[in-house]
Amino acid sequence: MNIVLASTSTLFGGNYLEYLENEIRSLFAGCEEIIFIPFARPGGISHDDYTQKVAEFFGKLGIRVKGLHTFEGMVEALNSAQGYFTGGGNTFLLVKMLHELKLMDVLKMNIETGKPYLGCSAGSNIGGLNMKTTNDMPIVYPPTFDCMALVPFNINPHYLDPSPHLKHNGETRETRIKEFLTQNETKVVGLREGNWIRRNGNSITVQGSEMTRIFENGKEPYEIEPGTTL
Amino acid sequence: MNIVLASTSTLFGGNYLEYLENEIRSLFAGCEEIIFIPFARPGGISHDDYTQKVAEFFGKLGIRVKGLHTFEGMVEALNSAQGYFTGGGNTFLLVKMLHELKLMDVLKMNIETGKPYLGCSAGSNIGGLNMKTTNDMPIVYPPTFDCMALVPFNINPHYLDPSPHLKHNGETRETRIKEFLTQNETKVVGLREGNWIRRNGNSITVQGSEMTRIFENGKEPYEIEPGTTL
Repeated sequence: MNIVLASTSTLFGGNYLEYLENEIRSLFAGCEEIIFIPFARPGGISHDDYTQKVAEFFGKLGIRVKGLHTFEGMVEALNSAQGYFTGGGNTFLLVKMLHELKLMDVLKMNIETGKPYLGCSAGSNIGGLNMKTTNDMPIVYPPTFDCMALVPFNINPHYLDPSPHLKHNGETRETRIKEFLTQNETKVVGLREGNWIRRNGNSITVQGSEMTRIFENGKEPYEIEPGTTL
Repeated sequence: MNIVLASTSTLFGGNYLEYLENEIRSLFAGCEEIIFIPFARPGGISHDDYTQKVAEFFGKLGIRVKGLHTFEGMVEALNSAQGYFTGGGNTFLLVKMLHELKLMDVLKMNIETGKPYLGCSAGSNIGGLNMKTTNDMPIVYPPTFDCMALVPFNINPHYLDPSPHLKHNGETRETRIKEFLTQNETKVVGLREGNWIRRNGNSITVQGSEMTRIFENGKEPYEIEPGTTL
């Protein structure tokens, strides 16, 4: 497999996908056209406009982008595509649409044959075993939380350290992930903004500018450096 | 109906339920014993210990507390009870357990006959139409997101204003609730810590020390003062 699962599409103060440009060039080397999956977006920007924003970035790399929503036969479109990018938004909405349109398994099977896949945020969540470690609000009810299992763990994108100054009693991100581990055996990768997971064949590493926090059952959470195998 | 749905159990720097003491005395006036529902708690503290913590507070008011988990026949226990308190934790876990144990509707029917109900955080979420505006992580998959509809809207407990200083690209609470409104017609009450909803018969008001932020389809979010009818 040939995959990038990024914590976020955009770094604070940066431009869309900018910090990932080198990795994206390498991921999609040889591709002339990819399919963009805009279904996570619940509003604020239309699927067309979202696709246009992606097309502008990929245009600089000489790669054309088509929105999956523009195809009448979406299964065939996925099967014919050279590569894929799923953008961020709301993971519940994304997972509901991919399952209801019977696209989740089609996408998974194509990626497992080696076609390149880029996910950001919600698009990275669906690369994990399931979406039970998303940060998103459950604005719709998906038929299942299961995802593509492109990596043998779950991802928590936009991982955020506890803020010592906040006078608020909502749970911290670390508390939430520890709650997940009381109900599940699955390893969770807390992916800070600036980091991404790179799968190349059977090699799975974490890349980027930040340390990555790992949560496993029966262990204290621990930090790993960029380049570490997962 | 006779209900208090609070944003949080504990204010920053305060003791458990302390800021709600007067309202709780009024809510449970005449009750000698209530049932505590500890099922939201995913770990960190056992159901027994959680119930003990609640019993210590209610002991000062002269009210005994029994944990629902200690009854063999939970439906009968709910039907025989004088009043109820559901504590905070993870809303997905709470909703899953209440539905799987066939208790959600039993609890609702008893409350609709006038038995007093106190909810905090996750326990307040289940008083709304559904749990689609919880802040919690989806650590388990409930059979439905539907809740008790004790009030004709949804609640967002621990409502938090955007932090202008945070260099992070995760969605703000306001963005999340606006995303909910792209997919649902339901009104959302953003309940800041320090506030609660009081239903007394057909009167539904917001109470507490803070302004409350209301989100409705097709309107800009707006603020209402303590005492305002919802």
